[in-house]
Amino acid sequence: MKKHNFSAGPCILPQSVFKEASEAILDFNNSGLSILEISHRSKDFVSVMEEAQQLSLELLGLENKGYKALFLQGGASTQFLMTAYNLLEKKAAYLNTGTWSTKAIKEAKLFGEIEEVASSKDKNFNYIPKGYSIPTNADYFHCTSNNTIFGTQIKEFPNSPIPLVCDMSSDIFSRNLDFSQFDLIYAGAQKNMGPAGTTLVIVKESILGKVTRQIPSMLDYQIHIGKESMFNTPSVYAVYVSMLTLRWLKDLGGINEIEKINNKKASAIYQEVDRNPLFKGYAEKADRSIMNATFTLTEPKLEELFNDLWKAAGINGLNGHRSVGGYRASMYNALPLESVEILVQVMKELETQA
Amino acid sequence: MKKHNFSAGPCILPQSVFKEASEAILDFNNSGLSILEISHRSKDFVSVMEEAQQLSLELLGLENKGYKALFLQGGASTQFLMTAYNLLEKKAAYLNTGTWSTKAIKEAKLFGEIEEVASSKDKNFNYIPKGYSIPTNADYFHCTSNNTIFGTQIKEFPNSPIPLVCDMSSDIFSRNLDFSQFDLIYAGAQKNMGPAGTTLVIVKESILGKVTRQIPSMLDYQIHIGKESMFNTPSVYAVYVSMLTLRWLKDLGGINEIEKINNKKASAIYQEVDRNPLFKGYAEKADRSIMNATFTLTEPKLEELFNDLWKAAGINGLNGHRSVGGYRASMYNALPLESVEILVQVMKELETQA
Repeated sequence: MKKHNFSAGPCILPQSVFKEASEAILDFNNSGLSILEISHRSKDFVSVMEEAQQLSLELLGLENKGYKALFLQGGASTQFLMTAYNLLEKKAAYLNTGTWSTKAIKEAKLFGEIEEVASSKDKNFNYIPKGYSIPTNADYFHCTSNNTIFGTQIKEFPNSPIPLVCDMSSDIFSRNLDFSQFDLIYAGAQKNMGPAGTTLVIVKESILGKVTRQIPSMLDYQIHIGKESMFNTPSVYAVYVSMLTLRWLKDLGGINEIEKINNKKASAIYQEVDRNPLFKGYAEKADRSIMNATFTLTEPKLEELFNDLWKAAGINGLNGHRSVGGYRASMYNALPLESVEILVQVMKELETQA
Repeated sequence: MKKHNFSAGPCILPQSVFKEASEAILDFNNSGLSILEISHRSKDFVSVMEEAQQLSLELLGLENKGYKALFLQGGASTQFLMTAYNLLEKKAAYLNTGTWSTKAIKEAKLFGEIEEVASSKDKNFNYIPKGYSIPTNADYFHCTSNNTIFGTQIKEFPNSPIPLVCDMSSDIFSRNLDFSQFDLIYAGAQKNMGPAGTTLVIVKESILGKVTRQIPSMLDYQIHIGKESMFNTPSVYAVYVSMLTLRWLKDLGGINEIEKINNKKASAIYQEVDRNPLFKGYAEKADRSIMNATFTLTEPKLEELFNDLWKAAGINGLNGHRSVGGYRASMYNALPLESVEILVQVMKELETQA
């Protein structure tokens, strides 16, 4: 039976990418060698790395604007400390919109003073704070664009008087923004970009080199830029599959096209959540994420029946995070509209059977 | 034509591993899902991570001896700073046997005083220093077991009065040692263990928790131990392929069996280097690596002919590192004896044609 994979990440990637990625394990570029056994300094892999970097900047509209794209290891969790290591001299400002912002703040506190400009913790992060002000005397402002666990998403970014740093792990390449308003964007690959094991960092070079502390080489953005993301052996296969996924997105028509599809998927699910009396949305409507829809049952006794129904329909990964409970439908770029339609049918079916 | 892959790393892995690793991209464990799209918290992947950790300890004979196995990101280059971050309070002792030791020393210097107990830099690292003494007042002693670039290898490890830390990136799982003499072993996967993108760390828990500095979460061994190597999303696919490779090694008979094969391969190549007047070994005989044989041509004018001959034989990755020049035959665990025999034939053929 066909699977409908709503996993929150690592998550579904395009089927055409899986096919090509599987073939490259046996024979990469007709070399007679697996992509897993070639040198990262080989011409074939250097070209993969360059294309991945170039496609990232191109899709975000950031070519020739002073930005560099890096594919590093360690996930967004490593970026929590690298951003502070590289940018935080005295004080930084953070917006707290959930679990990942909270973790980013915790790591940054080891490097300087942190001013939390606003937080939605008072309502278990079911909304995005607005109307806060960003201090001009901080080194940078950090925010999380999309909160996978709570299903909220920043729709309008503040006009920041200081460098704007954004963790876009769970919604990069999913919607069009003026990406040039950001000075540093980071994203673990394992949502819209590729498999786990690599992290994209897009950084404006002009914001670097301003802190006085000594930075270990592997944590220093300038070192990685100087070596074009090959200071040490990169996560070869994860970069390769990310490149294939970025190619797929470009062929599809880029962010403008995928945003239309993502909006259709999100509308379909939220419309049913709002219509069906058996479901209740978790996030405030204005802040609902187009990537992760969070909702609960209004009648808890229906849980077993609903779980049976969606599992029987081939749906995977619908359980909510323990911080919220209920359900979470993650609808990353590669999830087809058809899968969301199946989920909506199952929700209607619950109403019929209940 | 069949390829003979002597690449220095990332390098050849067993053909049976490539086959299984390719299939898992399309359908993992008959789940109908790719291994690239499943949650790292899923039962199927948690079981992969546990098996990889268990096999690592089992193959090294370190089960139930107070060690933990971690699969982290960032390569050995990240371990250069993590070892110092976690273990270096005032002073550490380092043995300098080449490029990687030198880099490890550079990063550790950011965290305390480094005493270089001995170095073979005077002869461009073509030997392993001996007879040095290790200070008892240092926090740990660090060495590199095998030097890929120079083709040297430590045959006997010192009886260290302080915790013994070893970078075994390029010879772990290749020869039998009393691994319990080490307190911390680290190794980038991309030689004998798997593809690039994950790093094995074997650490004796009792040496941790002794430094006074605050350690960022992602750099803290105790945090990773507490979360069983799943503090954040691991490099899922690289851990999976490493697990397959460790299974292959266990099925083959473990380190004792592979060591016999590795010794045969090394003997074959060094015998020819010593016999054939057209070649000269780079490393001192007593310190020759069984993983990487480095050698040069005695008559530089034969370079083009030799290159033509080995390329025509399907040999790949034989060029030496620029620090040494000449040639380097890397013979990691998965390289068949047959490939070394082909190379030896080509060396003999050069003598005939020259």
